[in-house]
Amino acid sequence: MSDKKYYCGIDLGGTKIYAVVADENGNVIANYKQKTKKSDDKSEQTKNSTETIIGRLTDCYHKVIENAGITENDIQSVGIAVPSSVNIKEGLLKYAPNLGLINVPIAKLMKEQIGKPIFVDNDVNMGIYGEYCLGAGKPFNHIYGLFVGTGIGGGYIHNGEVIRGVNYTAGEIGHMIMKIGGPKCNCGRSGCLEAIAGKIGIIAYMKKKTAESKNKTMLDDVAPNWRQTVGSSALSKCYNAGDKIVKKAIKRAAETIGIACANLINVVGVEAIIIGGGVVEEMEDIFMPIIIEKAKEYSIAGGAEGVSILPASLGDNSVALGAAWFTALEENKKFLL
Amino acid sequence: MSDKKYYCGIDLGGTKIYAVVADENGNVIANYKQKTKKSDDKSEQTKNSTETIIGRLTDCYHKVIENAGITENDIQSVGIAVPSSVNIKEGLLKYAPNLGLINVPIAKLMKEQIGKPIFVDNDVNMGIYGEYCLGAGKPFNHIYGLFVGTGIGGGYIHNGEVIRGVNYTAGEIGHMIMKIGGPKCNCGRSGCLEAIAGKIGIIAYMKKKTAESKNKTMLDDVAPNWRQTVGSSALSKCYNAGDKIVKKAIKRAAETIGIACANLINVVGVEAIIIGGGVVEEMEDIFMPIIIEKAKEYSIAGGAEGVSILPASLGDNSVALGAAWFTALEENKKFLL
Repeated sequence: MSDKKYYCGIDLGGTKIYAVVADENGNVIANYKQKTKKSDDKSEQTKNSTETIIGRLTDCYHKVIENAGITENDIQSVGIAVPSSVNIKEGLLKYAPNLGLINVPIAKLMKEQIGKPIFVDNDVNMGIYGEYCLGAGKPFNHIYGLFVGTGIGGGYIHNGEVIRGVNYTAGEIGHMIMKIGGPKCNCGRSGCLEAIAGKIGIIAYMKKKTAESKNKTMLDDVAPNWRQTVGSSALSKCYNAGDKIVKKAIKRAAETIGIACANLINVVGVEAIIIGGGVVEEMEDIFMPIIIEKAKEYSIAGGAEGVSILPASLGDNSVALGAAWFTALEENKKFLL
Repeated sequence: MSDKKYYCGIDLGGTKIYAVVADENGNVIANYKQKTKKSDDKSEQTKNSTETIIGRLTDCYHKVIENAGITENDIQSVGIAVPSSVNIKEGLLKYAPNLGLINVPIAKLMKEQIGKPIFVDNDVNMGIYGEYCLGAGKPFNHIYGLFVGTGIGGGYIHNGEVIRGVNYTAGEIGHMIMKIGGPKCNCGRSGCLEAIAGKIGIIAYMKKKTAESKNKTMLDDVAPNWRQTVGSSALSKCYNAGDKIVKKAIKRAAETIGIACANLINVVGVEAIIIGGGVVEEMEDIFMPIIIEKAKEYSIAGGAEGVSILPASLGDNSVALGAAWFTALEENKKFLL
């Protein structure tokens, strides 16, 4: 057992589980990754029973400690981030459709496995918390963060407090209506931010445009399966090669994220907006200038002065590190279960 | 001099100044109203010099004290609410276009006149603060308020703190973009909430519809000048008489306010939304059910559960009383200048 204190953070995603060990200065000293589902196991492809998930989380916990070269005794507390709203008082995952989980008492079940103080929260909340404490958000007190991937998630922090809202659902900026009557969203409504600017929205727009114009896109060669799913690097490649349809779709997505940022500035007056997620990370040089330009253009007079709009800086670590670090801070001890 | 303590609040509006005296329980014991501009004085119609405004505010202060039957010595502090963003640390009105005022140090100038501890803030912030402490918002800790009039203003309060934002411009929900590429707003942008749902937006829509359809509206008889300006009571009358164009315009406004409420629920997770202002007050029975229905429909699953959407309850007093009461509370003494 070491003299130092260590904290474990686990990011439970739809496709992978990613765990880190952080030291008392917030440095990641080890990580460990595994698939959420075992793709070669048919019976597990179709379901993620609570038992399986808890088993995997526990496995990751042990493996990352091993990778860190420390013992379980060195771990002070464990933060677990899940793709769901979470009743943090009970450590209860409420609804994670892409894991097939509903009302799972993650904290209780993991506590039985590992016996450490545990905190469970929404993944994007923890990612933004990581950025707030240790990343791009460090200089600020009042920030909103957006993670742009297939969908768009968000998190809101004011003076160190994660604003989770009365139903633990705050941060759902992906479902802010940006265009009444606009494109259909997976949530069933129309005009949501992510239906325009998430990868879902980008693909839908390109499908529509290629169907209308009968124009080809380079994606047909670069990523023939793009109508179902497309990597950010393929989008970036086609954008940089001047593909018209990809350029339009990306520009429209970035502009809409910029207007969403203006909405945040106008409505709640944040000091900084941190933007992360695979899509923006891969095309930071394309996205950020457009986002910043539109955010200024759509903010009311004086509202955007001195407001920082910055890319996230912790990359893949943000969520797991944010969860670990949340449990490390004295002010959050009251939340540990 | 009385044993009791009293607080003065003054609501500086574009057309009238309204002052109240509140007792230590937050009851309004007297009020006083005068026009902001003297309409019979040509030289003052065109300008509102700082001097004139300060003179009128001072006059209202003395008159409302007289009406209350107390003396200046009984007044502990004075809250002044203005139609502008305000640097509250300096008591500086930043920009009030409808008063023709820019960068006016209201607190300093009023202090010279009346010698009391003074606090100056945005009018809607103070109105929502009044509702939060003494009105419809009393049971809640995390609220957003919207005042729907010619335009739409807002205010945001979390655990007793008015969230003013880094540039003192938070609360500008009237300029939240609801429909990218939508109707032109007075602010120069397109698709703002108030361009659809403020009285400005309602009139613009009806002008468009009457021009398109060549249909008449009862407003032509009830309020012949409606294309320039229309009272909420005339709108209400025509709505209730079944006028198709008015009904469509009001329904569209209410629906859009409802979607804006859903945006607030999704993005920051408020416990309650308080809706006031002349338009909604006059047509509460029409607006509120539509707003509530759309807010639920556009909130993400579980997000709107238990969230209250309520009409404001302090009426014309909200802003002046909110300003007076803000200065009365111990926790706000640090803000007094």
